[in-house]
Amino acid sequence: MTRFRLLIEYDGSPFVGWQRQDNGISVQQALEDAVFAFCGERTDAVAAGRTDAGVHALGQVVHLDIEKPCSPGTLRDAVNFHLKPQPVAVLTADAADPGFHARFSAVGRRYLYRIVNRRAPLALDRGRAWRVAAPLDAGAMHQAAQALVGRHDFTSFRSSICQAASPVKTLGRLDVRREGQEILIHAEARSFLHHQVRNMAGSLRLVGEGRWTGDDIAAALSAKDRRAAGPTAPPEGLYLVEVRY
Amino acid sequence: MTRFRLLIEYDGSPFVGWQRQDNGISVQQALEDAVFAFCGERTDAVAAGRTDAGVHALGQVVHLDIEKPCSPGTLRDAVNFHLKPQPVAVLTADAADPGFHARFSAVGRRYLYRIVNRRAPLALDRGRAWRVAAPLDAGAMHQAAQALVGRHDFTSFRSSICQAASPVKTLGRLDVRREGQEILIHAEARSFLHHQVRNMAGSLRLVGEGRWTGDDIAAALSAKDRRAAGPTAPPEGLYLVEVRY
Repeated sequence: MTRFRLLIEYDGSPFVGWQRQDNGISVQQALEDAVFAFCGERTDAVAAGRTDAGVHALGQVVHLDIEKPCSPGTLRDAVNFHLKPQPVAVLTADAADPGFHARFSAVGRRYLYRIVNRRAPLALDRGRAWRVAAPLDAGAMHQAAQALVGRHDFTSFRSSICQAASPVKTLGRLDVRREGQEILIHAEARSFLHHQVRNMAGSLRLVGEGRWTGDDIAAALSAKDRRAAGPTAPPEGLYLVEVRY
Repeated sequence: MTRFRLLIEYDGSPFVGWQRQDNGISVQQALEDAVFAFCGERTDAVAAGRTDAGVHALGQVVHLDIEKPCSPGTLRDAVNFHLKPQPVAVLTADAADPGFHARFSAVGRRYLYRIVNRRAPLALDRGRAWRVAAPLDAGAMHQAAQALVGRHDFTSFRSSICQAASPVKTLGRLDVRREGQEILIHAEARSFLHHQVRNMAGSLRLVGEGRWTGDDIAAALSAKDRRAAGPTAPPEGLYLVEVRY
């Protein structure tokens, strides 16, 4: 048996999320089905980040075990072949140490939240970004975001269904910058709470519109109450960019 | 009656192209139907570039005439409302001179051809770029492309069904550069022949793979014979970026 580590990319739009669910196809199922089509084995694919429905990945990391002897390159190409027509692609495959765990071995995760700041609806970026019509001040958003960097109790930015043992996380980086009509929010941490990036993005949008100040962000954090922070930004703007080990 | 000039963006994937056809929905029809839903008028939308099926636009320019008195902002928002769920968006609308013609008044067109140069299939960029697996040398492609810049008979890079009166065009710019895993080809001219950018991209790919030299590109141009140049690159990599007046 060999443990493989896969780097995968997907368009989250058609999926119920990473994890298997009864109400539709998940990325996990698409991947496991492709592995089964290749080698006839029912494997259990474990991902670094269990992305929600509609959330994308540019660099999700997955591990899975396969009995059939095969090279990483063969596995990558065969799985890609059988993944069609699902919008999931294996970018690289490598043989991993049996102790490697995609989720528990990870020491850092990087997410990108994309806002397209314009009045017109999205055409080419539909399902791939959050369109916000009101003009956003990226500088004010970035400044306010710095109050969230560091080790804090992120209860105010945590989904009510979050299963993490503790609401305390260390946010390493939360950068906001404008690039043309886009506002890009880069977030880095060892790990995140459920909906944390989307809840931070939803609150920063209020700052960008001038409805909130940086102090309101700090106050929302101190409140340790989900109702104190802004609404959850939609999933389609979120990308899991990179996982570090 | 007012003539309006619209700047529009679209994802070309679901369309038979810009122009109305019997075999499916066109961007033109989607736009004209949205105008009809707004004001009950059957207008004739004229575009700067009649993009083919699967070709995208970031900055297509369209003119159309409307009897109903309305502000450009109202027209833009109403048409965007009625365009849903089609992936077409009106970015801006302006009242234009009655003599303005989106196609004949244009003095410059800029296209982008996107290649994603990697072995893995596309997931997030599916339908939005051409995936080429073999490693491409962007520097060699750029150098070879310079043989095509200037005023030439582009018969070798012209579709057999091209309706232009003359195969002579002046190519102002043909730049090829790598950005990470992407190869971006920027082409500028007053106007292009049918399939010209895709045929140039298909030939430059041969140079990038080392199967052709720059001299082969020059020889293909001199041959004035479509069979002398490379295959046509697929439509999904092509974007109409900008039209100048």
